[in-house]
Parts: sequence; C-alpha cells; structure tokens
Amino acid sequence: MTSALLEQSVVESPATFRVLTGDRPTGRLHLGHYFGTLHNRIRLQRIGVEVFLIIADYQVLTDRDIAERLPEHVEDLVLDYLAAGFDPGHGTVFAHSAVPALNQLLLPFLSLVSIAELGRNPTVKDEIAHSRQSAVSGLMFTYPAHQAADILFCKANLVPVGQDQLPHLELTRTIARRFNDHYGKVFPEPSPMLSSAPLLLGTDGTKMSKSRGNAISLSASADETARLIRGAKTDADRHITYEPERRPEVSSLVLLASLCRDRDPHEVAAEIGSGGAAVLKRTVTDAVNEFLAPIRARRAELARDRGYLRQVLRVGNARANEIADATLAEVRQAMRSVY
Amino acid sequence: MTSALLEQSVVESPATFRVLTGDRPTGRLHLGHYFGTLHNRIRLQRIGVEVFLIIADYQVLTDRDIAERLPEHVEDLVLDYLAAGFDPGHGTVFAHSAVPALNQLLLPFLSLVSIAELGRNPTVKDEIAHSRQSAVSGLMFTYPAHQAADILFCKANLVPVGQDQLPHLELTRTIARRFNDHYGKVFPEPSPMLSSAPLLLGTDGTKMSKSRGNAISLSASADETARLIRGAKTDADRHITYEPERRPEVSSLVLLASLCRDRDPHEVAAEIGSGGAAVLKRTVTDAVNEFLAPIRARRAELARDRGYLRQVLRVGNARANEIADATLAEVRQAMRSVY
Repeated sequence: MTSALLEQSVVESPATFRVLTGDRPTGRLHLGHYFGTLHNRIRLQRIGVEVFLIIADYQVLTDRDIAERLPEHVEDLVLDYLAAGFDPGHGTVFAHSAVPALNQLLLPFLSLVSIAELGRNPTVKDEIAHSRQSAVSGLMFTYPAHQAADILFCKANLVPVGQDQLPHLELTRTIARRFNDHYGKVFPEPSPMLSSAPLLLGTDGTKMSKSRGNAISLSASADETARLIRGAKTDADRHITYEPERRPEVSSLVLLASLCRDRDPHEVAAEIGSGGAAVLKRTVTDAVNEFLAPIRARRAELARDRGYLRQVLRVGNARANEIADATLAEVRQAMRSVY
Repeated sequence: MTSALLEQSVVESPATFRVLTGDRPTGRLHLGHYFGTLHNRIRLQRIGVEVFLIIADYQVLTDRDIAERLPEHVEDLVLDYLAAGFDPGHGTVFAHSAVPALNQLLLPFLSLVSIAELGRNPTVKDEIAHSRQSAVSGLMFTYPAHQAADILFCKANLVPVGQDQLPHLELTRTIARRFNDHYGKVFPEPSPMLSSAPLLLGTDGTKMSKSRGNAISLSASADETARLIRGAKTDADRHITYEPERRPEVSSLVLLASLCRDRDPHEVAAEIGSGGAAVLKRTVTDAVNEFLAPIRARRAELARDRGYLRQVLRVGNARANEIADATLAEVRQAMRSVY
C-alpha cells in the first residue's frame, strides 16, 4: 500500500489500527523529536488510533551514565509525552522491562530467525562494523527480535518509521509471517508508516542531538531558547529564502518557524525577506516560544506531581502486562505448550 | 573445590544448597537417564537439598515432530520423575515456557556477554559446524544465556553436569559474576557437581538413545525389557568379566545389573563366571525387572491420574513463577529499573 493510501485508510478507519512506537530513555525530548515523531503520534491518537508508547529501557543498559539515572530519564520521557499532548486515558505508556510476557516472546521469535538474518540488520551490522566484533553484546545482536516482540505483543499493525528503519520492520513482518505459518495465525504483519516529517538540523547545522548542545528541548525556558537560536549558524546572504539543499542552516531555521506556526516555509522566508539573520532569529525565537508556551506550562504543572507521573506509568505497565499475558496465552495455545 | 569436598559439604549442610537441572521433553526416560542423572537428583532431594527440575520445552521448538506432541512429552517427563521417586512436595517441577520472569532475565544477561563468547560455547559451536552457518537459529545461538537464566532465576548454587557441560556452566558463572559486579550482588556463582555415573551403553553397544531403539525405558514392560536384553550385543568370550575398555558391550550389561542391585560389577561378573551370554542376559533381565518393578507400578498408578500430574506441574509452575518474580524484582532494584 502506498503511504497516501495507508494514510487515507487510517483517517477513515482509525479504530482498526493500533500503533506501537517509543523511545530510548536517554534524556529530555527536543523539537527534533517533537516534529519528527511526537507530533504524529499525538495526531494519530487524536483521530482515534490506539497508540502504545514503549520506553525502551533495556536498550540503554550498555550506556553506564544513562543506566545509572534510569528512573529520572524514564520519568522525563513520560513528562514530555504528556506535556506534548499524549492522552494516557486513550493510550498506553509503559516500560519495556516491566512486561515479562512481552519479553518471553523473544524466545519463540528467536527460533524463527537465523543468525545470518540477525546479522544483516543494518543497526546490528553498524554496531559490528564500529566495534570489535567480539565486543558486540548478545543483547545488541538480538535487537531485531526484541523489536518484533515489542511490536507484536500488542498486535500493533502500524509502526511509524524512518526510511532507515524499514529493514527492522521487515524482520518483524517476517517473524509474524513465520510464526503464523508454523503455528497458526496469531499476529498481524504490521505496516510501516513512513515519516513525512522534514529533517530539522540543530542550531549548529549538524544533526539535532541533546549531546551536541544544539537542540531546543521541550523543557527549555524561553530565555534558553532565545540564547540557543541567537547562537545558531546562518550564512552570509542577508536575503532569507527556503532552500534546504543550498542553504541548510538558514532553511532549517525557517522550517522550524514554519512548523511552529503551521505555515508554508517559503511564505515565512518571503516575509522576512532581506531582514537578515537577525530578523530570522527573532522570528524563529518568537515562533518557538509561542508554540512551546502551552507545552512548557503543562510540563511545569505535571512536573510538580511526580506521584501522578508514576501513576500513569503504573497504569500503562499494568495495561501492557494484561495485553502481553493475553497474547502469550494465545502463543502458548498455538504452540501447544499449555500443560 | 574438589568433587569430594563439595560432596562432603552437600551431605553435611544440604539445606544450604539449591539444585537446578532438567531435561528436554523429547520422550520417555530410560535407564541411561535414570543412572546418569535421575538417581542423583533423587538422592540429593532425599538428603534435604532443594531440587528444581526444569522441563526445557523451548529447546525442542526446532524439532517439529516433538513440538507437535509437546503436552504428551511434558506429561511423560513429569510421570517419569515422580515414578522414579522425585517428591513434588519437597521440590519443584516446572516448564520453561510457563515462567515469563525467568525468561525476561535473558535480556539483561544477554547484555553481559559478547557474541564471541556465545559462539565459543561448545554446543553452539557444534551446531554452527554441523549446519550451514546461516541456518543456526537465534534461539540456539543464545542458548548459553538461556541456561544462565534457567539456573540463576532460582539462585541455584549447585548444578549437576557432565564433563562436556562444564563450559556452559562457566558462562553462567561469568554472567552471575558480571551482573554482581555491575549492579550489586544478586546471584550466586553456581558450582558444578560433576557426575560420577559410569556410562551405560545401549543394547547394541552404541550410545543409549530412545531413537536408536537400544534403550530400556522406565515405562517398558518386563517382557519388552527381556526381549531388548535378549537381543543385546555381547562377544565371543563365554567367560564374563567386567573390563569396560576391552569388552564394552559385555561390561555395560554387567554394569547395568550391578547398578540395579547396587553391587560391585566385578563381583557380579565373577558370579556369572563362565555362564556365558545366556546367564549374563538372564541375570541382567532379572536385575532390571526387579529394580524397575516398583517404579513401573508407581508409574502405572500415576498414569491413571492425569489430573494429579497436571496439578503437580501447575503447582510447580506457580512456585517457579513466585521465585522468578521475586528474583526479577531484585534484579530491577539492582538495575534501578523500578519506576
């Protein structure tokens, strides 16, 4: 199915779709996350698709700095989800490590893929290429099968992905198909929903990333935001245009303002005209701060009630466990391992 | 610690030891299993060691014939355990697939071993050597880490093994040590209890195995037993001796009789003297049938009460889950993944 047809089908029959997506708990979310993924998740939830957000805490085990502050990172993620508009009353946020029946699916799934197939996965391949082969952990190597368990435990049939993640989802589809062929139909073969979000660069013109200090986090103050944008990289041409290929830094700033204001970037650029970098930056700062104001207010309010955040996660974990238990029961039935 | 010292320590303080061992549910157990492993498990249980028997049902997934008759094979295993004298009131029989929290341990454990270490395991290495590399499943490849989860979920500190299984246990010890070093002490480093059982050959002089039709199963009738032993391979020398190296087939029969009668094999051989194969076989048949009579009677009685067998497994699964849940809670605490 083409992206357009899939999108039409989702809009027309949202209740027939279930989405699984999520994040590794590595720190606060920034505008790159917001416009890249969060925005779409919340849109899907608002039109009536059931959305599951997995906090992939077992995927950060090898990063010691992160692993030592896990609860804080997990809570920050819940906070960002809710501040951005995710409704826990109509969706589920849960932690990967909290759902044993989901994790058990890894075992039958691993029996359905060969080590050659696991090694062909681009993320695993990259990891092997970048470390000494001997240093790649068993957890990293089996990552594509974990992802299949994450997606299939709740029978998600729609997974928002970037182009680079298509091979992952393909292996999930293969595992679902093989399981169904061997044991009888239990799982859907989930469709990828290719992201249409344009790429936002960091304020230094490179990939937006918290660790590079070039990202505006949802929780940043208006002053921090202004400071970051004031220091953003531009170019020597005073006349502002939207030409992502030729002028990536300036265009990314224009894009950010246009996304925040839900306007066409060419129009935004035309209005600034020959105002130069100064007007561009003022425009972007105003747009971002206006856009983030309600999100920041909600975030600040939610942050004062840690008990509520933990409650959201507890309820989400309970719901994920309920669903995982039911799926595992079906899997056991299909595999005749009911004694 | 030497085997003798370990044995002494077990006999003196049985309550400080917990044993995990088990079988793949591939069919009925035979005398090779009995004298090789079952006998020792029941001895340990009787002196007061807590014994856990895992029915490794996820390890037979790739064998379609077995996988299709799983419930039958699993029930047969429970039946054989109980008939042989395992007391479910003082030990636990459970199925691997029934304990999600045990299976979840696989994920943190996989993060502690490299793919090089997994590939060095002799069972995995064999599998890779005997199949096309591409055909080895992810389940087989990660098998050493599953075994660590099986052993460590109940904090077993004693694992009966054959010489060839020592490297498996070494990786379990490595995983326990690394987990404790990274996250704080949760797991014991289990000691291997090397089997002292002498090797019984099948009636054709090759390795005893159900699939070769050369094994006397615990559930065989007295007549089937007599027929199998009548057809056993011997040699041309009428004078019966116990010389395993020089006369493997005759010596294995002598050994079988001596094990059943709890006597010295040289004495058993001397008593038969020049009676030849006929007397040897009669002696062995009588010894085996006398020895198995009470086990067979118990087995037949238990087999009439399938509800009881299922109950034993249900109770065992429940206890294994209780322990696995508690261990996983400790693991989460240690890993700071409590939210």
